[in-house]
Amino acid sequence: MTSSPALLAADWGTTNFRLFLYDADGKVVARHTAHIGLKNLGGQSFEQALQSVMTGPFARPDLPVLLSGMVGSRQGWIEAPYAQCPAGPDAFSQGFATPPSEKLKVRIVPGLSSQNPATGITDVMRGEETQIVGLMTQGLNDGIVILPGTHSKWARIENGKVTSFLSYMTGEMFQMLKVHSILGVLMADTADDEKSFLLGVDRALEDTSILSLLFSVRTEALFGRIAPAHLSSYLSGLLIGAEIGAGKARNGLQSVGIIGDGALINLYQRALSRAGFTDVTRHNGDDASSAGLWELAQQGHLL
Amino acid sequence: MTSSPALLAADWGTTNFRLFLYDADGKVVARHTAHIGLKNLGGQSFEQALQSVMTGPFARPDLPVLLSGMVGSRQGWIEAPYAQCPAGPDAFSQGFATPPSEKLKVRIVPGLSSQNPATGITDVMRGEETQIVGLMTQGLNDGIVILPGTHSKWARIENGKVTSFLSYMTGEMFQMLKVHSILGVLMADTADDEKSFLLGVDRALEDTSILSLLFSVRTEALFGRIAPAHLSSYLSGLLIGAEIGAGKARNGLQSVGIIGDGALINLYQRALSRAGFTDVTRHNGDDASSAGLWELAQQGHLL
Repeated sequence: MTSSPALLAADWGTTNFRLFLYDADGKVVARHTAHIGLKNLGGQSFEQALQSVMTGPFARPDLPVLLSGMVGSRQGWIEAPYAQCPAGPDAFSQGFATPPSEKLKVRIVPGLSSQNPATGITDVMRGEETQIVGLMTQGLNDGIVILPGTHSKWARIENGKVTSFLSYMTGEMFQMLKVHSILGVLMADTADDEKSFLLGVDRALEDTSILSLLFSVRTEALFGRIAPAHLSSYLSGLLIGAEIGAGKARNGLQSVGIIGDGALINLYQRALSRAGFTDVTRHNGDDASSAGLWELAQQGHLL
Repeated sequence: MTSSPALLAADWGTTNFRLFLYDADGKVVARHTAHIGLKNLGGQSFEQALQSVMTGPFARPDLPVLLSGMVGSRQGWIEAPYAQCPAGPDAFSQGFATPPSEKLKVRIVPGLSSQNPATGITDVMRGEETQIVGLMTQGLNDGIVILPGTHSKWARIENGKVTSFLSYMTGEMFQMLKVHSILGVLMADTADDEKSFLLGVDRALEDTSILSLLFSVRTEALFGRIAPAHLSSYLSGLLIGAEIGAGKARNGLQSVGIIGDGALINLYQRALSRAGFTDVTRHNGDDASSAGLWELAQQGHLL
């Protein structure tokens, strides 16, 4: 017998929306994904979009709702100001924003910003901070958390706080170079090739000049050393290797948790191993989000 | 009174075609540009395209013709095999390729390849080697030659030979990020801004992780620190700074000759100065090509 539903929560991003229903013990009793990311709202208001997915087991307008992700950005429901590094779960749960809603009790988790005093550059995340909290509930209180993706994040965790983080445009660069550059023209019938991927990783770990290394996608094709079908794997290796090389130079060989799913995480795991990271754990993205949202709802006394 | 015409020569690339007519003393007596780059040939053969521009003072089918550039590539008139570094003018003039032509005496300058024994990566150029020869005729026999552009080249010159070189995808990356990335979306009414450009240069010279630095184009916009109209200058500074930082790390602060024209060369000159290069000379691209073609025609006994 399960206890009765107690919380609705969602990771609400630009593209994805992932909804969770929890019982009073924090167990996820139902989950749902919908195409109501910020760029797919059509004419709906945020409240309308949220209500449109509150059907079946989710038809519980009486429950509190906690949201994380780009829904708290300037283009979202309401802007939830960034917490600043160093920040732990308490900083997020004390910073909930309350968007205007007639019928629902909604709170939004703030994003997180990291200021680099040496460069003056500020970096930002929204949604990932909640996933990191999810890993903290599993005991990850020191080390590095990597969140691969369009804009990969490397977060440094010390004593249960995110002390700093940095974004890398790895995923966006990969897609852009494949589709819009002279390198993409050379690629054909893309097939994953581990050897080409690892060659790219190794070269990027040896040489920090990715602007130059990228040109080797062209010359390796020109001289027939990498088959057209394997150039995409080589490019992926160069970019992921460049990201990991930079992260290693900045953080050293600490323990690492990677958050994400599917083939991309496999690639990161292989590349991290190549770079000498030996203590690497994998964490499902949905589980990290749902665990983080529950933890923050608890700490923020939302229930 | 000028001596009579003695040589026709052209830099024939993917986009551009620049034709020179020389007298017997090597003086350029007429020059012409045409839109018959490799990608604009339409249905014409290379011989037809060349004959189409041999009008007026260039109507001299009796003269020898020397070509450099992508016309010697696999997609060109005939593939002129690459000379290999280290290589000086003699290697190029001994490697002329002879394309099939019924009516003209045509030779094509080989390209140049550079093998990095540490990485196993081979780099290539076509056309730039002839411009470098042009600078050598002006006394540049040691130092670095930079050829900024879509795929910038840094060539190391020692004792009158190109001993190695490396390409950087700086120009293509800039265009691609402006047009196709999340960064370009933030830019508006682009205006050149020296302060934003130099901020980008300085940051890239301090930090080798360009994949991460590029994300700061987004956050500097988000926090209103760089105006939308100046983001393009900042992006340009980051990329050119990253190229120059890598070139400096590889070659040290040597004397530098830059080949090219217009605003781009001004940017490189400012960024090189920021990086500590004090001995920098500028060279017009057309003049470098025409001087190099004349020198190679002489050494190859084409006249």
